[in-house]
Amino acid sequence: MTGFRLTPLAASLPSTVPFVGPETQERQNGRPFRARLGANESIFGPSPRAIDAMERAARDIWKYGDSSSHDLRHALAHAQGVAPENVLVGEGIDGILGNLVRLTVAPGDHVVTSEGAYPTFNYHVAGFGGTLHKVPYVNDHEDPASLFEKAAQVGAKLVYLANPDNPMGTWHEGATLQKAIDAHLPEDCLLVLDEAYIEFAPKGTAPRIDPNDPRVIRTRTFSKIHGMAGARVGYAIGAPGLIGAFDKVRNHFGMNRAAQDGALAALQDADYVADIREKVAHARGRIAAIAQAHGLSALPSATNFVAVDMGGDHVLARAFLDALNARGVFIRMPGVVPLNRCVRISCGRDADLDVLEAEFGPALDAARQS
Amino acid sequence: MTGFRLTPLAASLPSTVPFVGPETQERQNGRPFRARLGANESIFGPSPRAIDAMERAARDIWKYGDSSSHDLRHALAHAQGVAPENVLVGEGIDGILGNLVRLTVAPGDHVVTSEGAYPTFNYHVAGFGGTLHKVPYVNDHEDPASLFEKAAQVGAKLVYLANPDNPMGTWHEGATLQKAIDAHLPEDCLLVLDEAYIEFAPKGTAPRIDPNDPRVIRTRTFSKIHGMAGARVGYAIGAPGLIGAFDKVRNHFGMNRAAQDGALAALQDADYVADIREKVAHARGRIAAIAQAHGLSALPSATNFVAVDMGGDHVLARAFLDALNARGVFIRMPGVVPLNRCVRISCGRDADLDVLEAEFGPALDAARQS
Repeated sequence: MTGFRLTPLAASLPSTVPFVGPETQERQNGRPFRARLGANESIFGPSPRAIDAMERAARDIWKYGDSSSHDLRHALAHAQGVAPENVLVGEGIDGILGNLVRLTVAPGDHVVTSEGAYPTFNYHVAGFGGTLHKVPYVNDHEDPASLFEKAAQVGAKLVYLANPDNPMGTWHEGATLQKAIDAHLPEDCLLVLDEAYIEFAPKGTAPRIDPNDPRVIRTRTFSKIHGMAGARVGYAIGAPGLIGAFDKVRNHFGMNRAAQDGALAALQDADYVADIREKVAHARGRIAAIAQAHGLSALPSATNFVAVDMGGDHVLARAFLDALNARGVFIRMPGVVPLNRCVRISCGRDADLDVLEAEFGPALDAARQS
Repeated sequence: MTGFRLTPLAASLPSTVPFVGPETQERQNGRPFRARLGANESIFGPSPRAIDAMERAARDIWKYGDSSSHDLRHALAHAQGVAPENVLVGEGIDGILGNLVRLTVAPGDHVVTSEGAYPTFNYHVAGFGGTLHKVPYVNDHEDPASLFEKAAQVGAKLVYLANPDNPMGTWHEGATLQKAIDAHLPEDCLLVLDEAYIEFAPKGTAPRIDPNDPRVIRTRTFSKIHGMAGARVGYAIGAPGLIGAFDKVRNHFGMNRAAQDGALAALQDADYVADIREKVAHARGRIAAIAQAHGLSALPSATNFVAVDMGGDHVLARAFLDALNARGVFIRMPGVVPLNRCVRISCGRDADLDVLEAEFGPALDAARQS
C-alpha cells in the first residue's frame, strides 16, 4: 500500500529547517545555554502590561481568538495613521510571509532577494515553487538599486528587502529607499519591506510610503522590541486589495487569544518601548566594546543585535561560534560569503553580556587555535 | 501601476470566511453574548494546571517556542503509545489540515468529504486548487462506505472523515471504521480521520490503527476537551514519512510558547479531563431535556455539543438561531440539507444553560411566527 501521495512540488522539497532552535541545541549539548544571544529575541522581556494581559487571558483561553483581530488591528491602524483595511494581523512575520508567497508565487514565478538575507523568506518561496534570484550585499548593506534592477530583469513578482537588515544590522535612510522605489521598483513587482527591527533604528529610517500603494507591503512584529517572539504576532501594512486577499487563504482562527491581548497591551505601553530602545542601545555599545577589546570591529547596527567582524573567513567565525556554544553562549552567524566573516550577537541584559564578555576571549583563542 | 499580482489560483478564490466569529457577531449586535454556545468551545475552561503553566510562561514569552515542540510531542507519543516520529504538533487542527492539503493536493487532484462536514477542510482544499467531491450523510452519520467508494471512483488523494462527527455529533464504533478501512479505503488514498471530539465519545470509538499505516492520519486537539481553543494546539498521528514531510512546509517557529507549556500541563491532568467528560455528559443531557420540553428531539451525541432537530426545514432552524442570537445566545447550525433542519448547541456550565433554557421557548415562538 502507498497511502499518502505528496504533490510533485512537495516531494521535491528538502526537509529544510531554516533555523535550528536553541532548545534543540541545548538538548544536543545536554545543558541549557547560560546566555541566549542567537535569535534576536528581546531578553528584556515584554512590557509588564503585556505580561499582565497574557496572564489574565490564560483563564479565557477556552475561547477561540477573534478571527479578525479587530481590536489589535484597529489599534495598530490608529498607531500607524492608516486605515484598518491597510492592516493585517498574522502569526508572526513568518506566517504572514508564508501566506504572501502563497498568494503571489506559483511554480515558474520569480522572486528576488539578497544573498544572505532572511532564510525563512527563501524557504517559503521554495515551498511554493518560486525561482529565487539573489543579488549580493554592497558594503554589508542590502542594495535597493541592484535588487530592483534584478527584479526588472527577471520580471519578479516579489522583491524582499529588510530595513534595517538582518543579519548585518545595517540600514538605509527612509529617503534613500523612497528614491530607489520611485526610480527603480518595477511597477508590477511587490516590494516586501520587512521592518521587523524598525523600532530600534534612528528616526527617518522608515520610508514614507502611501499605505494604499499596491507596490509595497511592510511587515512588522511584536517579536522584537515588544519582547513577544514566543507569542507569534506580526502585522503587515499594505493596500486594501492585497491585505484583503489574505482572507482567501489565511487560517482565520489561527491567532492565539492571549497573544492578541498581550500585543494590544504592549502597543499601549510607549514608555516601555522607549526604555527597551535605550537598553538595546546600551547593549549594542557594550557588545561593540567587547569586540574592540579583542581587536575586532563591530558593524554599526540599527537593530537589537550586532554583527561582529571576526577578521577572518567563515571558518574562523564558525569556530568562534562553536567555541562560544561549547561555553554556554548561543549566537548565530550569516550563511554566505562575505557576510559570514561575521558572527551575530543579540542584545541582552548586563548579566547576559557578562557571560559573553567572560567567554569571548577564551572562545576566540580556541577558534584561532583550531 | 499594478503592484501585486496574485497567482491565477489565488485570484480565483473567493474571500470566503469558513466561520463568522462570535466577536464579529457581538460587534454587529452591539452587545456581548450572554451564553456562548456556538463554537464547541469548552466553557469549563482549561485545567488549573494549564492556566498556571500559561501564566508562568507569559514572562518568558520573549523566547521563540521550541521549533520541534519536543517535550509536548514526546509526552503525546507516550500518552498515545506511539513513537515521537508518529506525532506532529501544529497550530490547531486547522493549521495541520492546511499544511496536509498543501503537501498532498495540487490543482486537478481530487478530495472526498461528506456534504455538510467540516467547512474549514473544504476551505483548504479549495485554497490549494483541489476538486472536492461530497457524499451525503446517511441517517445523520458520515458514511465510511460511500466516502471510500467515492474516493476510489475519483482517485482521491484525501478522504476526510470526522469521528465523532461535527456538526451532528454522531459517531461510529471504532471496529466499524476498522472494517470499512480494511474493506474499502483505496490503498493510495489518505484517510484524514479527524478525532477532535474523541475524548467525549464512548470507549471503543477510536479505531485501532497501526500508527505506521501510511493510509491514515488522525488529528486531535487541545481546543475541545482540554478547553484551550484560543491557544491553537493540535496534533496529528501518522506514519513517520508523512509526519516528517510537514517539516518541508510548516512554519517551524509557529507555535506559541505559552500554548506549548499549557498543553503539556493539560495533558498531565487526567483527573480534570475525566471531570470535564462528566460535566459535558451532564450538559448534553440538559440540552436534550430542554429540547424535549418543547416537543423537539435531540440527536445522540458523542461530542461536547448537541444537534437539536427543530422539526422543520432550514428556514425554521435559521429563524430559531437568529431569534436566539437576538436574545443573547450564540449557537450555530449545519449548512446543508437535510442536516440544516437542526441547530447545534455547545455544552456549557449550568449558568449558560440557564440562559439557553430561559430563551429557548421565546425564540422558538418567534421562529414559528416568522
